[in-house]
Amino acid sequence: MAFDGFRPLDEKIFVEYLKATPSLAAKLGNQFDDLQIKEVGDGNLNFVYIVIAPGGSSVIKQALPYIRCIGESWPMTKERAYFEASTLQEHGRLCPEHVPEVYHFDRTMCLIGMRYLEPPHIILRKGLIAGIEYPLLAEHMSEYMAKTLFYTSLLYLTTTNHKNAVAKYCGNVELCRLTEQVIFSDPYKVSEYNRWTTPYLDADAEAVRGDNILKLEIAELKSKFCERTQSLIHGDLHTGSVMVTAESTQVIDPEFSFYGPAGFDVGAFIGNLILAYFAQDGHSNNGADRKLYKVWILKTITETWNLFYTKFTALWDNHKDGPGEAYLSEIYNNLDLQLLIKKKYMDDLFHDTLGFGAAKMIRRIVGVAHVEDFESIKEASKRADCERKALNFAKTLLKERRQFQNIEKVVSAIELLDTS
Amino acid sequence: MAFDGFRPLDEKIFVEYLKATPSLAAKLGNQFDDLQIKEVGDGNLNFVYIVIAPGGSSVIKQALPYIRCIGESWPMTKERAYFEASTLQEHGRLCPEHVPEVYHFDRTMCLIGMRYLEPPHIILRKGLIAGIEYPLLAEHMSEYMAKTLFYTSLLYLTTTNHKNAVAKYCGNVELCRLTEQVIFSDPYKVSEYNRWTTPYLDADAEAVRGDNILKLEIAELKSKFCERTQSLIHGDLHTGSVMVTAESTQVIDPEFSFYGPAGFDVGAFIGNLILAYFAQDGHSNNGADRKLYKVWILKTITETWNLFYTKFTALWDNHKDGPGEAYLSEIYNNLDLQLLIKKKYMDDLFHDTLGFGAAKMIRRIVGVAHVEDFESIKEASKRADCERKALNFAKTLLKERRQFQNIEKVVSAIELLDTS
Repeated sequence: MAFDGFRPLDEKIFVEYLKATPSLAAKLGNQFDDLQIKEVGDGNLNFVYIVIAPGGSSVIKQALPYIRCIGESWPMTKERAYFEASTLQEHGRLCPEHVPEVYHFDRTMCLIGMRYLEPPHIILRKGLIAGIEYPLLAEHMSEYMAKTLFYTSLLYLTTTNHKNAVAKYCGNVELCRLTEQVIFSDPYKVSEYNRWTTPYLDADAEAVRGDNILKLEIAELKSKFCERTQSLIHGDLHTGSVMVTAESTQVIDPEFSFYGPAGFDVGAFIGNLILAYFAQDGHSNNGADRKLYKVWILKTITETWNLFYTKFTALWDNHKDGPGEAYLSEIYNNLDLQLLIKKKYMDDLFHDTLGFGAAKMIRRIVGVAHVEDFESIKEASKRADCERKALNFAKTLLKERRQFQNIEKVVSAIELLDTS
Repeated sequence: MAFDGFRPLDEKIFVEYLKATPSLAAKLGNQFDDLQIKEVGDGNLNFVYIVIAPGGSSVIKQALPYIRCIGESWPMTKERAYFEASTLQEHGRLCPEHVPEVYHFDRTMCLIGMRYLEPPHIILRKGLIAGIEYPLLAEHMSEYMAKTLFYTSLLYLTTTNHKNAVAKYCGNVELCRLTEQVIFSDPYKVSEYNRWTTPYLDADAEAVRGDNILKLEIAELKSKFCERTQSLIHGDLHTGSVMVTAESTQVIDPEFSFYGPAGFDVGAFIGNLILAYFAQDGHSNNGADRKLYKVWILKTITETWNLFYTKFTALWDNHKDGPGEAYLSEIYNNLDLQLLIKKKYMDDLFHDTLGFGAAKMIRRIVGVAHVEDFESIKEASKRADCERKALNFAKTLLKERRQFQNIEKVVSAIELLDTS
């Protein structure tokens, strides 16, 4: 059987494909008699199958030429699978501890074969909704972000390697455009795709669309998103793109990846933790009290940034005589100056993180794609109360991000708004 | 005769090449008996021939795989001719009044055939040294910069077209790297290529290499140069890249072009006008008094920025419902907000202009490539006095650029430093 053109994988040809693909067949121990195959794609975009054989397992992910959750009416290039596979491989090379291994990539079929993240791995967002603490989460996520964002920046790359990589990822423009629309545009204008908890948040959504200062700030962030090629970013690093157990943290789904502002990734993760925080009051009557859990989320936010800061600057120190061409060691040749450039770089990255994090919060409340953290709160008025707090905090954060000197101040502001 | 591989053009094969190339042959009226051929490349990088036939004329420019003024010891990709031709064509499409027409491009031979800018066109820098006023210069240069920088930015382009173009010009990385080295690196460290008017400026050059704040600022500009894909910039827009008569202004030599910060072009031009200003005292004893001429240069600086501002924002207004995706009209839908975003965009562009302009001044005094404005001042101590004033002004401008609210304030600072 030949696979010489694109075709959506169905159950019929699935096994034939596995048999015809040596790298996948080997991972399954070349035994195909007792395969368990399960379609699990709960995401918005792709088909995802888990294949378990007596001798091994794999996940098979295939991109289709449209957005799955909307259907063929919203076409979306299947070439995104190429960028997803490229980034899984590149980020996996830089941080193998927290990126699942890619076994196989078929560009024609837009198909990736990769490690099956076996139970008890679950999507982090679901863990946060269930109130489960992950003591290593901040440690692991800061490690992943520090390594992937440092090693793909000009702090480590030559400008030759950087520009080559930038050019390649310019090809992922359709996915970038989706981000531009749903994060930087739609929430700030009337759009058929926007939705919110109505009627409770009608006035709040309208206020977003009428807020000149908010729009001025979102424009600055959009311009950075479109024009600044700082690092190879994941591009969609919310808590639904992370799978966890108590010991393991694995980052998946980098199909939105491209060379963009590093703060977009750090902000996506922290912004989604803040969403999880504000959703807790909506879950607290399901039996358990969430007071202590909220404290844990705030601690995780603080640790994530502070560990990221420590690890990122440590990589910088370790490689200050390395290939990176942003700050040549012959020029930045004294300790005072090294501290100055580091402070400036990290302050900028921090304020980008807060800005992008806020933007990602806003769009989850008044834009097209919502988060299960809030959606799973059945009672609409209660959900709206949680969402309004999150929205108000995000607006403040977006407008006043430059006034926050450190993550502790951000966390204090969250607590203050929550209790006021 | 076949030209199926690269070979440097010599007088012997020159005519054969013209005959074999229909677009060039036509421009010469298909008459090859009385050709006048003159090699005029006084630049640093290429061979440039003028060909005049009874029935027409052309300039033939060929890139060689090394930097001409240094020789084969400094290799430099001849692919730069491709980017030069592309940008001449693109900028020419956007602003035909001020860009010479391209008749022919041969990628294999790295050869461009283009309009011969007939006498009395001279290089602007030579005109400035001679003390010649060009009453239309500010008008023309602001027109060229406004059109080329506006139409290639996200104020006019979709993100799809922008990212495609960005990817293409990432290929010009070798020329970008040359800029990175000679503008953003070498002047701030010990380098075999640096030179200055010694011994007079020895301490000044050393002070540049020891100035932490200057180095902090140049790092920020380098990062913008390497990471910000704002517009298709010329990349080397000094007064040696402009040919002028009283009525005509033509921009040539965009081989350093790529998607970079718009302020790099505006700054290059204005910075070189400021160099011309500070060089005038070195020319004033050659007969004529340069007092009035210095006033004209300052007036031209002021008008260049102010006209650029007016024209650029007028293009923005005219196209605010156009294809550009930076500021969607459905979001930026009231006058207050439109004024806010414009002020922010133009303030940033102004401060980038001042920063890059200052960087380009500094490198011409203590870096590898100097300017004829100063080099033609024979007496070293007098030259050093002029250069020191320019250097000191540039250092102030680089460090304090964000404090300047408008170009008039910059011009006042120039006058103040000049007379103190």
